[in-house]
Amino acid sequence: MSPTGEALRKVLDGPFHAIKQRWREEVTADDVVRDTAYSMEEARDWALDRVIKLADRSFVTAGFPTEQGGTGNAADSVANFEMVAMGDLSLTIKSGVQHGLFGGAIVNLGTQHHHETFLPDAISVSLPGCFAMTELGHGSDVQSLETTITWDHETGEFIVDSPTPTATKAYIGNAGRDGRMAAVFGQLYVDGEHEGVHVVLVPIRDELGADLPGVTTGDHGHKGGLLGVDNGTIRFDQVRVPRVMLLDRYGGVDENGAYHSRIKSKNARFFTMLGTLVRGRICVGGGASSAARKALTISVDYANRRRQFREPGLGEEIALLDYLTHQRRLLPNVAAAYAFGFAQNQLSLELQKVMEAEGADPQAARALETLAAGMKALQTRWANDTLQECREACGGAGYMSDNAITLLRQDADVFATFEGDNTVLLQLVAKALLLHYRTSWGEMDLRGTAQKTARLIGGTVLERTTARSLIDRLVASANRKPESQKLRARGWQIQMFEFREEHVLEGLAQRMRAASKADDAFAAVNQCQTHMLEAAKAHIERVVLEAFVAAIEECEDDYVKALLVKVCDLYALSTIETNRAWYLEHEAFDPRRSKSITAAVDELCGELRGKSKELVEGLGVPRGWLVHPRTAIPPLIDRD
Amino acid sequence: MSPTGEALRKVLDGPFHAIKQRWREEVTADDVVRDTAYSMEEARDWALDRVIKLADRSFVTAGFPTEQGGTGNAADSVANFEMVAMGDLSLTIKSGVQHGLFGGAIVNLGTQHHHETFLPDAISVSLPGCFAMTELGHGSDVQSLETTITWDHETGEFIVDSPTPTATKAYIGNAGRDGRMAAVFGQLYVDGEHEGVHVVLVPIRDELGADLPGVTTGDHGHKGGLLGVDNGTIRFDQVRVPRVMLLDRYGGVDENGAYHSRIKSKNARFFTMLGTLVRGRICVGGGASSAARKALTISVDYANRRRQFREPGLGEEIALLDYLTHQRRLLPNVAAAYAFGFAQNQLSLELQKVMEAEGADPQAARALETLAAGMKALQTRWANDTLQECREACGGAGYMSDNAITLLRQDADVFATFEGDNTVLLQLVAKALLLHYRTSWGEMDLRGTAQKTARLIGGTVLERTTARSLIDRLVASANRKPESQKLRARGWQIQMFEFREEHVLEGLAQRMRAASKADDAFAAVNQCQTHMLEAAKAHIERVVLEAFVAAIEECEDDYVKALLVKVCDLYALSTIETNRAWYLEHEAFDPRRSKSITAAVDELCGELRGKSKELVEGLGVPRGWLVHPRTAIPPLIDRD
Repeated sequence: MSPTGEALRKVLDGPFHAIKQRWREEVTADDVVRDTAYSMEEARDWALDRVIKLADRSFVTAGFPTEQGGTGNAADSVANFEMVAMGDLSLTIKSGVQHGLFGGAIVNLGTQHHHETFLPDAISVSLPGCFAMTELGHGSDVQSLETTITWDHETGEFIVDSPTPTATKAYIGNAGRDGRMAAVFGQLYVDGEHEGVHVVLVPIRDELGADLPGVTTGDHGHKGGLLGVDNGTIRFDQVRVPRVMLLDRYGGVDENGAYHSRIKSKNARFFTMLGTLVRGRICVGGGASSAARKALTISVDYANRRRQFREPGLGEEIALLDYLTHQRRLLPNVAAAYAFGFAQNQLSLELQKVMEAEGADPQAARALETLAAGMKALQTRWANDTLQECREACGGAGYMSDNAITLLRQDADVFATFEGDNTVLLQLVAKALLLHYRTSWGEMDLRGTAQKTARLIGGTVLERTTARSLIDRLVASANRKPESQKLRARGWQIQMFEFREEHVLEGLAQRMRAASKADDAFAAVNQCQTHMLEAAKAHIERVVLEAFVAAIEECEDDYVKALLVKVCDLYALSTIETNRAWYLEHEAFDPRRSKSITAAVDELCGELRGKSKELVEGLGVPRGWLVHPRTAIPPLIDRD
Repeated sequence: MSPTGEALRKVLDGPFHAIKQRWREEVTADDVVRDTAYSMEEARDWALDRVIKLADRSFVTAGFPTEQGGTGNAADSVANFEMVAMGDLSLTIKSGVQHGLFGGAIVNLGTQHHHETFLPDAISVSLPGCFAMTELGHGSDVQSLETTITWDHETGEFIVDSPTPTATKAYIGNAGRDGRMAAVFGQLYVDGEHEGVHVVLVPIRDELGADLPGVTTGDHGHKGGLLGVDNGTIRFDQVRVPRVMLLDRYGGVDENGAYHSRIKSKNARFFTMLGTLVRGRICVGGGASSAARKALTISVDYANRRRQFREPGLGEEIALLDYLTHQRRLLPNVAAAYAFGFAQNQLSLELQKVMEAEGADPQAARALETLAAGMKALQTRWANDTLQECREACGGAGYMSDNAITLLRQDADVFATFEGDNTVLLQLVAKALLLHYRTSWGEMDLRGTAQKTARLIGGTVLERTTARSLIDRLVASANRKPESQKLRARGWQIQMFEFREEHVLEGLAQRMRAASKADDAFAAVNQCQTHMLEAAKAHIERVVLEAFVAAIEECEDDYVKALLVKVCDLYALSTIETNRAWYLEHEAFDPRRSKSITAAVDELCGELRGKSKELVEGLGVPRGWLVHPRTAIPPLIDRD
């Protein structure tokens, strides 16, 4: 690896460099890279085997309490997730389901009894578990789940039931084959009183893998990807579990059969419980980015070596990456990989702060949820688009499974859907922005939002993720520059991102206010939906740019810093270019400037083309993991 | 099926209604729909078995000469291809390789001896064959192939050889397992004279499937999709074949060992030979559209039934397709499916005309090649994007293989690459436009193009695919309308499409002229690459719109006609909306109009939402083929 590549890697890893280096030094391709030719059963066996081994070597257990052998550090667990995702996404999700979701539910929603009783086996995977939230009838709308958890005063048990066909738990990881227990989300009823969604641990299979009485599991079988994860269905027919199986950190039934919760509002309780699960979204966004980084590494390597068509008049054939269209396909995505990487590091640190505050800073918790939702949506969208671009940029060779990209593409596909559908998440982000971070995860009452929004007009405030003073300094500096130098002035770029965010949000607020007064409130608010998505994207894009700016400010290596300045220019200008229709519509700049932005992106591609090798090295994907050891012909990766 | 759906289907099928209806009436899901859970070997076995049966029932053999039992109708063979693609794309490509490429090479490049000797077995698939053009080192640049075909005067044989590792034939369908013979593209040398690329038939495996002496085949194994097609590699080590194995319609060696060709220029000969293979590109574009139509049918059906989140104040949950964002994801793509469908019909008819002219109209042949290249690139790009959108629009359920969309997505992926990489094809289109249809398929000499282009400036002419008088009438009518009614005036939309095409092309021509004078010609021309792609897209989009206009003009059912008028509005306005940054940059309209276009697209989505069921019925996918008969839970398709 080049010294520049190494230095870039260190900067991009940031606070997680040590934890990520441990993976690169100690974990081999055999540990984490799947044979792309595996059948579904082989892939499932492999993923189960490898997740057990990774857990045994403490590579995926950082997030657990120190009492159970973890470090209790949620940010480290995100970093681990991002690394395993550079190996294989099935393995990542197998661990994500087991340690992140099932284990995480016990950690965050359970109490000491649950931790002591179940975590050791959850960690070692001797108790494979499910996170049984989604049902056939309801996925995004968790508050409408139909599964019931009914307290039986007589026997001191909970009765778990699927009252309708659509109450069937669906798409649940570990439910298809391996799961022995499930953390089941359902509506809790105590003495006829509805207490809202709670989570109860329910054993679902015996030691031999047979369904327990009253439980019916199903296997979704073959999927569009993630073949190593056994997604399936679970139905409950009046299944009884002891009182202590309810995860009761935020609400439970005492020995006398009385319901208690320290959060009085059913709604607040629901969102507090869901809020503790925010790490899953942060992991998914980071994991998708890891997959995109791997594909970019493969396709940039290929584009530097693959030649096609001769230079006119000369004998030499031209390397793909010398073509402008090819630079355009890959290099702005390399820049975005850096941008998202820095923003993801900041997000992980925020997660750690919120977890350590243990509920003491609810506003920070809500802000984190909003940012996590937005970062998940934008990173998974970008990752899927980038993976496809990389596949096509490698031509027919990129379609051969041996070359890893198609597998990444298939596995990452569903990242746009699970842990929150992207379209729904972006609307939640917009709503939170409208309500000024006063509300939280999951509510979709658009009409209510519209009404409350009336208060907001004229009062939008950008929440800063980076030092105000740094941003102010950059903006002031840009304002002093002549017009011809504006495009590459960071302050001008920031102003453009901010202008868009503020303007879209204010326009949305006005529309929502008007909508709240309409006769057909749904129809009126529905017309604002595309504006909501736009507002959310504009917000997250600005946050990402600021994270990049902050990272550059902290960089101590002058050479690397100068390189990152260009990479940041490319991220900023290609993002503005993508949105240039909006800017032109809102007269933020004129047609001439718009065309000059396109020219500047072309120019930056040309300038960074010579550093493409170092830039993808900096993305931090271990070279030995790029292809499976068995891979034969014709590898996209130069093995020399 | 609704009467409206039936009527739409008839209009969209157009001249191919009868041939497509035969499939819908006689072919069952068992004949053409693959079990999504099949392993690679099972998928290969299934595809081979089913292609033999379809051939036996004369469903995929229309393109062969009447002497061999076909109809000789190339357009019909495209229609057949489009239908089988609604069943399964592996089966489609298995037949495409066997009947379209291998059989097509024999038909179009061979002479009577080859037809009589090989076509019967090629048709029945008792002689599985390969189309061995692409090599590891060269795919897009066919003129640089390294395989040699050397005439041995002594023995009266050709010696076929792979002189370098990169000369290995790669990604070849039927080469991995089933192929017995290959149509091999290589550089022909006769008595030391280089005669350019020719095609020779070479037996590659014996009856038992073992490689013949001097031949080494390899299997690419698992791919990103098309698991039913056995792509592989072939190497030749001085393999000898008799003189008559050369496909010598455009050039061959006579009994005395002398080379003859009625086309003197090596370059012209090459492009004439490649030109006869144009049908493959037309099929691939149409097949991709078929896959997109199937996914749209599935996802619109789902969006009409799936409900999530309650209407505020009411108990009822809202159907996905009632959300504006969901309408936006699907309905403009339904409109595009109609637009591409009408344009594809026109393209097939053009193909038939050119084939019937048998070389008498070389200008029409060049125009066909250009249109085929552009339609292939735009349809496959649109299909891939649409398939992904449909997958995500079906949420987690869309990710289950049982629900067909992920399989379509995986299989269609490589359509963007094979039969011509889309980026390369769009550049060929642009070049042809610049040279005013005077040049042809395959040349990538950008510098030469730049020089010749100097003559063009100011002389661009739009080639019309639809009656000039109709277009003139629509434009005149639009010009008389008040501003407020312009957006939905067809003539205004056409003017916008034409303005963009002409303006982009003229700008490109100017840039190319400037580039031709630059010191570093490659660098200068390279800077024009993105403009070339833009010009090609603008051209094809205009041709597609005009095809839609012509189809509406011919429609005799007033109700259907009125519906299609709105669908065409949605296609036209959403295309303009997608390109609105360009229009604003070139001041074709102002910001206010730009926003009103977005509002008009929203409005049209609302107007067509109530007809979504009929519109997808009109796409013509047999309902029984939407899922495999084995499919269990939970189908996206309402089976009632």
